[in-house]
Amino acid sequence: MKATHIEHIGIAVSNLDAAIDFYEDKLGLKCYRVEEVQDQKVKTAFFMVGQTKLELLESTSPEGPIGKFIEKRGEGLHHLAFAVEDLQENLDELSEKGVRLIDETPRLGAEGLQIAFVHPKSTFGVLTELCEKQDEK
Amino acid sequence: MKATHIEHIGIAVSNLDAAIDFYEDKLGLKCYRVEEVQDQKVKTAFFMVGQTKLELLESTSPEGPIGKFIEKRGEGLHHLAFAVEDLQENLDELSEKGVRLIDETPRLGAEGLQIAFVHPKSTFGVLTELCEKQDEK
Repeated sequence: MKATHIEHIGIAVSNLDAAIDFYEDKLGLKCYRVEEVQDQKVKTAFFMVGQTKLELLESTSPEGPIGKFIEKRGEGLHHLAFAVEDLQENLDELSEKGVRLIDETPRLGAEGLQIAFVHPKSTFGVLTELCEKQDEK
Repeated sequence: MKATHIEHIGIAVSNLDAAIDFYEDKLGLKCYRVEEVQDQKVKTAFFMVGQTKLELLESTSPEGPIGKFIEKRGEGLHHLAFAVEDLQENLDELSEKGVRLIDETPRLGAEGLQIAFVHPKSTFGVLTELCEKQDEK
């Protein structure tokens, strides 16, 4: 795999509005976008810090992955996303090296990115995402 | 607070050598430093991805914070560290705004950085660190 930078860090929160207030008022960051990703049953808020986004995630359903995560572990750091330039090529390489993938092929994520998740069983407990900007091709 | 970028992401692992192998062989990153921080009862390994470091943390004692974290929650994402330019000034500002701090004043962390932790009770479950490079002053 060849990552250029950390694309984003996903953070599970119970109350998106309260968390946005905290990141803006206390941490001095600016929320530049709020987006609902129906496929993943989440409402997300984005903040830029240098090269990297913080992606706050509030579940829109107790059955969604963030709802289940918070029920089991509470709020907190949820996943780590690397930016790559050719997502399918990187997925194929990981797969050939025996890394277990959740997504064998890219799918559409927030902000129009192509994304895929690696299984945390293969990554020492870190839910790992790979992202590719579509306009980079 | 005024953060310039994500300084590092701390990841708790049970077996540092096995995790280093994974991040090098599978994820294609290069471990540039291994360091023991006795104060925090951890052995750490660092990888650079763009502006941001990944800091793998193996506990050197079951009584240390990483040992306790893994016992309670398993391996995975542990903390998020922001780079700031004047650590004490940023700590004072957070404190004045009612944010609960673990460290009211900076202390020495890995790689010679001045660091301080914010309490996760104040940050929606995210253990948050602020870091300042000493040579920036």
